[in-house]
Amino acid sequence: MFDTFAALLDWFGIVVFATTGALVASRKQMDIVGFVLLGTATGIGGGTIRDLLIDALPVFWVREPAYLVTCVAVSCAAFFLAHIPQSRLKLLLWCDAIGMALFAVTGAEKALLVEASPIVAVAMGVITATFGGIVRDVLGGESPVILSREIYVSAALGGAMAFVALALSGMTREYALAGGFLAAFAIRASALRWDWSLPRYRPRPGRTREEIDL
Amino acid sequence: MFDTFAALLDWFGIVVFATTGALVASRKQMDIVGFVLLGTATGIGGGTIRDLLIDALPVFWVREPAYLVTCVAVSCAAFFLAHIPQSRLKLLLWCDAIGMALFAVTGAEKALLVEASPIVAVAMGVITATFGGIVRDVLGGESPVILSREIYVSAALGGAMAFVALALSGMTREYALAGGFLAAFAIRASALRWDWSLPRYRPRPGRTREEIDL
Amino acid sequence: MFDTFAALLDWFGIVVFATTGALVASRKQMDIVGFVLLGTATGIGGGTIRDLLIDALPVFWVREPAYLVTCVAVSCAAFFLAHIPQSRLKLLLWCDAIGMALFAVTGAEKALLVEASPIVAVAMGVITATFGGIVRDVLGGESPVILSREIYVSAALGGAMAFVALALSGMTREYALAGGFLAAFAIRASALRWDWSLPRYRPRPGRTREEIDL
Repeated sequence: MFDTFAALLDWFGIVVFATTGALVASRKQMDIVGFVLLGTATGIGGGTIRDLLIDALPVFWVREPAYLVTCVAVSCAAFFLAHIPQSRLKLLLWCDAIGMALFAVTGAEKALLVEASPIVAVAMGVITATFGGIVRDVLGGESPVILSREIYVSAALGGAMAFVALALSGMTREYALAGGFLAAFAIRASALRWDWSLPRYRPRPGRTREEIDL
Repeated sequence: MFDTFAALLDWFGIVVFATTGALVASRKQMDIVGFVLLGTATGIGGGTIRDLLIDALPVFWVREPAYLVTCVAVSCAAFFLAHIPQSRLKLLLWCDAIGMALFAVTGAEKALLVEASPIVAVAMGVITATFGGIVRDVLGGESPVILSREIYVSAALGGAMAFVALALSGMTREYALAGGFLAAFAIRASALRWDWSLPRYRPRPGRTREEIDL
Repeated sequence: MFDTFAALLDWFGIVVFATTGALVASRKQMDIVGFVLLGTATGIGGGTIRDLLIDALPVFWVREPAYLVTCVAVSCAAFFLAHIPQSRLKLLLWCDAIGMALFAVTGAEKALLVEASPIVAVAMGVITATFGGIVRDVLGGESPVILSREIYVSAALGGAMAFVALALSGMTREYALAGGFLAAFAIRASALRWDWSLPRYRPRPGRTREEIDL
């Protein structure tokens, strides 16, 4: 029952992330193979890196190819249907927020299931939630999300921390997952809605290699 | 006998790919260490990612360091000899087509040998054939091949699919390998010769973050 | 005793590398999460890739989360304290030289401990020493170190080769580690001090795709 619930969350997140990857491909006017590559990398990239790091090998989509098939199908569909939503990027951002919040908790959950320590579980939640998007940005030639002024990684961090804290405090895992998801989504949604951002480092920027005398 | 044949194909592909990496280093006017790093990453990068994903660890060149030695030797030789071919990029493109076609089938073959499902085997063929080049482009600071208008990933996909279909239909693996190789090479060669490309996504490009009102 | 020594070296290298990552984040004026992500990726990135390749899974910081905690703590501290050193980049370069030299020998050492062949051990030293910085540059949107005109990878290569040669010649590992470290640091320090660089490939740069007729 619980595993079914977690698996459903995982599927939804993968569909949503594959869509965001394909929509980036649409902005770059790629061909259908580019859609598939970018959609698939975004959909399963974060979980792949998580599985490599915690030694859950072979990675989940090699054991369960339906994930791969889903990403390919979603990406192909997006190639033909991406023109429908008029406000595509707005949709992209909100879908992305849902996918990020889902992956932050399911990624941390999976790490806890293989007996990782709490801090590693939090890190795996953040990695699962954000590295698909980082791979998407590197492959798609966009500025990596880490450089942007938005609260994104922080929201994944907050959600993963909330989930791990709730799970370790003895709460049922269903509630812990829901709590973590809501924390991550609330942070990201607020940041999107009210343009929140964290204070940035200012005092005095470092200098480039050429400006200093060794 | 079959393993020998597959191993020979693998070796040829690695030499060819290492050369293409080194020739990119020549275009960037790197030093010899840059040649070695870029040549080696291109030569063994795709297979390394394949081995990580299908849990064939430690990766092939850790078990068989001769691959690593070969990449280093080829890259060093290219540093001194890269000026010989006058039409360097033309050669690079055709060598690359051969290497890509080889890796698409040997990568898929290796996945089938560890009992991966057919669709995962196709994905591993594509990854083995194209991720060395993607790593090369990212490290060398070039625009990733996925963004280009050329048919490259598609050719690897076609070859890997042909190989897996032939292998599963009961054909001898030698013939299946040859068939898959010829499919991949024919697609890539035709695309190079007649400037083929797939239709691209056009209708209406997605907008950037700044253009929309949340 | 020896293991304690090697572990201490590893810790120092991770603190130093996390600092260099955080200082790059300061140059990009990131927020504190960006500091943590970049500092952590730089601190443990090279060793993570090494562990993946030699099948020492799960990776070292999943088994020993204190490494992860240290990177996070160092990065957070750097967010508030990075303004103190006036000549930040000069410090960054010299810290980086120490960290690179340490990782080149401890990375090769770790590969030898899992029975890797000497050439693979050298490669693992180079990867441990340089790939954290490469990940930092890719995530931070800077030009990858491999493209720069500096002697950096070469110094790691020299140190790893010296260490492996000394270790295999029967020298006590403490001395071999010290010898390799000094070799790497001396090469890098000389290169920094006297602006050394290796000869670059010149004769005739390769042409771009558009300049040739297929």
